[in-house]
Amino acid sequence: MSNPVLVEVIRGSRIESAHRGAAAVVDADGALVLALGHVDVPIYPRSAVKALQALVMMETGAADRFTFGEEELALACASHGGEPGHVAGVARMLARAGLDQAALACGGHWPSHQASAHALVRAGAMPSALHNNCSGKHAGFVCAACAMGIDHRNYVAPEHPVQRAVKAAIQEMAGAVVGDDEVGIDGCSVPTWALPLSHLARAFARFATGHGLPPQRADAARRLRAACAAKPWFVAGTGRFCTEVMKHFGERVFVKTGAEGVFCAALPQQGLGIAIKCDDGAGRAAEVVAAALIARFVQAGDADRRVFDALVRPQLRNWNGTIVGSLSPSLMLLVT
Amino acid sequence: MSNPVLVEVIRGSRIESAHRGAAAVVDADGALVLALGHVDVPIYPRSAVKALQALVMMETGAADRFTFGEEELALACASHGGEPGHVAGVARMLARAGLDQAALACGGHWPSHQASAHALVRAGAMPSALHNNCSGKHAGFVCAACAMGIDHRNYVAPEHPVQRAVKAAIQEMAGAVVGDDEVGIDGCSVPTWALPLSHLARAFARFATGHGLPPQRADAARRLRAACAAKPWFVAGTGRFCTEVMKHFGERVFVKTGAEGVFCAALPQQGLGIAIKCDDGAGRAAEVVAAALIARFVQAGDADRRVFDALVRPQLRNWNGTIVGSLSPSLMLLVT
Repeated sequence: MSNPVLVEVIRGSRIESAHRGAAAVVDADGALVLALGHVDVPIYPRSAVKALQALVMMETGAADRFTFGEEELALACASHGGEPGHVAGVARMLARAGLDQAALACGGHWPSHQASAHALVRAGAMPSALHNNCSGKHAGFVCAACAMGIDHRNYVAPEHPVQRAVKAAIQEMAGAVVGDDEVGIDGCSVPTWALPLSHLARAFARFATGHGLPPQRADAARRLRAACAAKPWFVAGTGRFCTEVMKHFGERVFVKTGAEGVFCAALPQQGLGIAIKCDDGAGRAAEVVAAALIARFVQAGDADRRVFDALVRPQLRNWNGTIVGSLSPSLMLLVT
Repeated sequence: MSNPVLVEVIRGSRIESAHRGAAAVVDADGALVLALGHVDVPIYPRSAVKALQALVMMETGAADRFTFGEEELALACASHGGEPGHVAGVARMLARAGLDQAALACGGHWPSHQASAHALVRAGAMPSALHNNCSGKHAGFVCAACAMGIDHRNYVAPEHPVQRAVKAAIQEMAGAVVGDDEVGIDGCSVPTWALPLSHLARAFARFATGHGLPPQRADAARRLRAACAAKPWFVAGTGRFCTEVMKHFGERVFVKTGAEGVFCAALPQQGLGIAIKCDDGAGRAAEVVAAALIARFVQAGDADRRVFDALVRPQLRNWNGTIVGSLSPSLMLLVT
């Protein structure tokens, strides 16, 4: 009962490595448009559902109360590279609530954006929680607690009202009930609730369209999508896959990566949601699968196809810049 | 025709990800002691065969002519972290041949050892070819060419006499003929010749024992093993898997990682060679498989078992240091 190979890694004349996984493309009524592999097995969605987690920040009124603009909304949905603009944006979110980085429980790590990490080193500084790729989401949680008029401390605990609201929102979007034991602790210490890919994709179809959602939630989803489309740099960062895709496609495609090979996307014009999990946790493969499925379902023009070519079959270069191979999607991802 | 799951990634109550692969344990006559998955499919061994590539440096007389000691021999077998001691050692190897880093064709990259990378940044320096994790192997190739009295330039080309000698040595050790088209370009630009795991494991059984090898080659293998056992820090670096294993086990266990989920080991006391390839290219899984197989075949004392416990089932911690999961080997790796 194994999932199919979705991506092959080619070097020289051989397939050097291969990534198995599953992917679901679903409409807002929950109808499966495409299912590859086992899409009914719960998986941890990790950071791929930050936009769903951010619904709580919108619906508690935190975004309006603290006058968040597009940059702040995009940061709440982000796995950012810790570049100075990201860090300043998250600090601004917290300052609007009268708080600072001490309120964040995500832990610190060096920016994944190398030049930003090196700038910190040169300044003799250490990374703080603001540099954590999840700091925008955490600032959103803290601000949601403030807007709810409750203690924001311990906001990462599964029983904290903010996380209860997050779980409820994800369940409603996905049309699934998640047991309280179907939970892992994420890299940034918040709960990650296990969901089947079919339901995760449905959640993003609803996020894409607002179909079947209460008006307030549909509006919250629309504002988050519009913010990410307008400020895609704040969702990931310089040169990153999610940023590059949304920079090109704007409101036509919402994408979000998650740890351990998870990827979600929303296609508003097609009314579809996409959810992907690579069995082995490989992000390089999840990006190729996402690019291939978006290329398959989006009505693409010539400019789109040029963007897709590089994302669907990325080349591998060695330390001398020589092309030594490529990633290649399986035929089953491409055939319509 | 898929390989079995060899390692599971556990988070919370669930298997979050899983790594498939194949592994062969073989004696010096080529008899399979254990075969998991498809061990007859050629794979690129990448950096896992650096010790076999280094045989040419020994057999051309380069190591003696340039009075290489244990540190230099270990560096020729290394994928090092670019720490200052590694960089100085490789510079020393080249200086003995009257050359410097300009002779290296591996390209440069930032040290994988973070503190060493940060020290470069603070000094306002950029990484050179000396910092490339493969620089010791490349210095060995360059010095071999010098000892052969031939032009060292273009030493990375498959048709250069050094690479022809490397291919011949690997074929003889493995007891296999590799077609000239069965080649990929490695991350450091040298050829990587595809071999089945069964033959790769046989090569390391011979490397472990000298069984069936001409006396000069058996002596070269013995000296390389002794050097890596005596100076394991030079084979990888601070906190790295290969270094930690050889620090503990000394001459009882030789180990070497390779890119894309490859791992090789030699067990001299048991007369066995081990070769592992994770289908998806995951190094985290290859290390767990290696640790589990070494634990299974080495006659372990209590101190050994304490070391193995942490390597066979490594814990996963998040940015706050909370244990959120673990890697776990499949039962088939453990049962005897």
